[in-house]
Amino acid sequence: MAKVRFRIAMSLDGYTAGPQQSEENPLGIGGTQLHEWAIPLAAWRAPHGLEGGEVNESTRVVEESLANIGATIMGRNMFGGHPGPWDAAEPWNGWWGVDPPFHHPVFVLTHHARPPLALEGGTTFTFVTDGIVAALELARRAAHGLDVSLAGGASTAQQYLGAGLVDEMEIHLVPILLGAGERLFEGVRELGGLELVRTVAAPNVTHLKFARR
Amino acid sequence: MAKVRFRIAMSLDGYTAGPQQSEENPLGIGGTQLHEWAIPLAAWRAPHGLEGGEVNESTRVVEESLANIGATIMGRNMFGGHPGPWDAAEPWNGWWGVDPPFHHPVFVLTHHARPPLALEGGTTFTFVTDGIVAALELARRAAHGLDVSLAGGASTAQQYLGAGLVDEMEIHLVPILLGAGERLFEGVRELGGLELVRTVAAPNVTHLKFARR
Repeated sequence: MAKVRFRIAMSLDGYTAGPQQSEENPLGIGGTQLHEWAIPLAAWRAPHGLEGGEVNESTRVVEESLANIGATIMGRNMFGGHPGPWDAAEPWNGWWGVDPPFHHPVFVLTHHARPPLALEGGTTFTFVTDGIVAALELARRAAHGLDVSLAGGASTAQQYLGAGLVDEMEIHLVPILLGAGERLFEGVRELGGLELVRTVAAPNVTHLKFARR
Repeated sequence: MAKVRFRIAMSLDGYTAGPQQSEENPLGIGGTQLHEWAIPLAAWRAPHGLEGGEVNESTRVVEESLANIGATIMGRNMFGGHPGPWDAAEPWNGWWGVDPPFHHPVFVLTHHARPPLALEGGTTFTFVTDGIVAALELARRAAHGLDVSLAGGASTAQQYLGAGLVDEMEIHLVPILLGAGERLFEGVRELGGLELVRTVAAPNVTHLKFARR
């Protein structure tokens, strides 16, 4: 059966974004440090249209995390832009330009209805206002048997974890402190049957894979 | 030069003890789960006077953490007992019985003066009321060139980390959530030059060693 998976970079003190997230600084103060291990990788660069790059212990983890995904779910904050109702005159269309790197249907959790947004390369954003279970049903159907990726942010991950709907979780543990910001496990008290099944030590990151045994 | 080292077990959500710590339940609710990986190890059992046990990837980490230590520093809460001034009539003498497993001088950070306590097997507890730097000076002198171990708890580790006085830190990352309790990095905003230098994947735990490069 198709799995619900998420992967997320987390600091040693448990943050997935620094404080004071904004349109200019979507990862918050210091938050870009969470992704520095990934940027040099060929496996990260290729889907972003960049040539070259490194191959190291992180490579297979990143490749695995990108493979076999048929649909993505993300929170409103990850899709980005302003809070509150959508601006019909100047709509926010995501961080990713006209050809986002998803190339499959993406479902955005929001409290504010909006028509679907079809961009280039097969990425469509559908805005879901009736909750995480409804979004998951839509995503499963759209994924045609492939897995559903929870792209984040922390709040989205927390809601699915709390509901016991996550089948696999890959934490990219980055050995730094952020000291403040958005905590991945805020308000989450158990892993819903997920257990550590693999640890990969890599430059500037430790990959911790959790799954149901 | 002798190093200041600490090792501590931490949950995936950053806790080193669960909520509601008490004399009956010193690790708080759920806190004993942080140490379940260690209990079966021969390397853990031997210093506690127990025979047998397992050898696995954690063994060398535990052995290393116990080797070359000449003195230990711990916080009042780790030494245990009641809060406030010491009870002269029925003094609390630690969790460890008449022959504690330290076998070297131990310095306890406290706000309440008390004469030194000499127990069997070479363990003496000295109660230090004038702060972490004074305790470290005493411990360094007592260690005779060997390393000084910070035994915990989280508050003691935070104070030494915050002051940039830690040379090595081994985090035993346990893949569970506690959801509440005492956070290792509460109020700590940087690692003071410590970098991840080794990752060891072991059954039910991932050992993350930090040191100055």
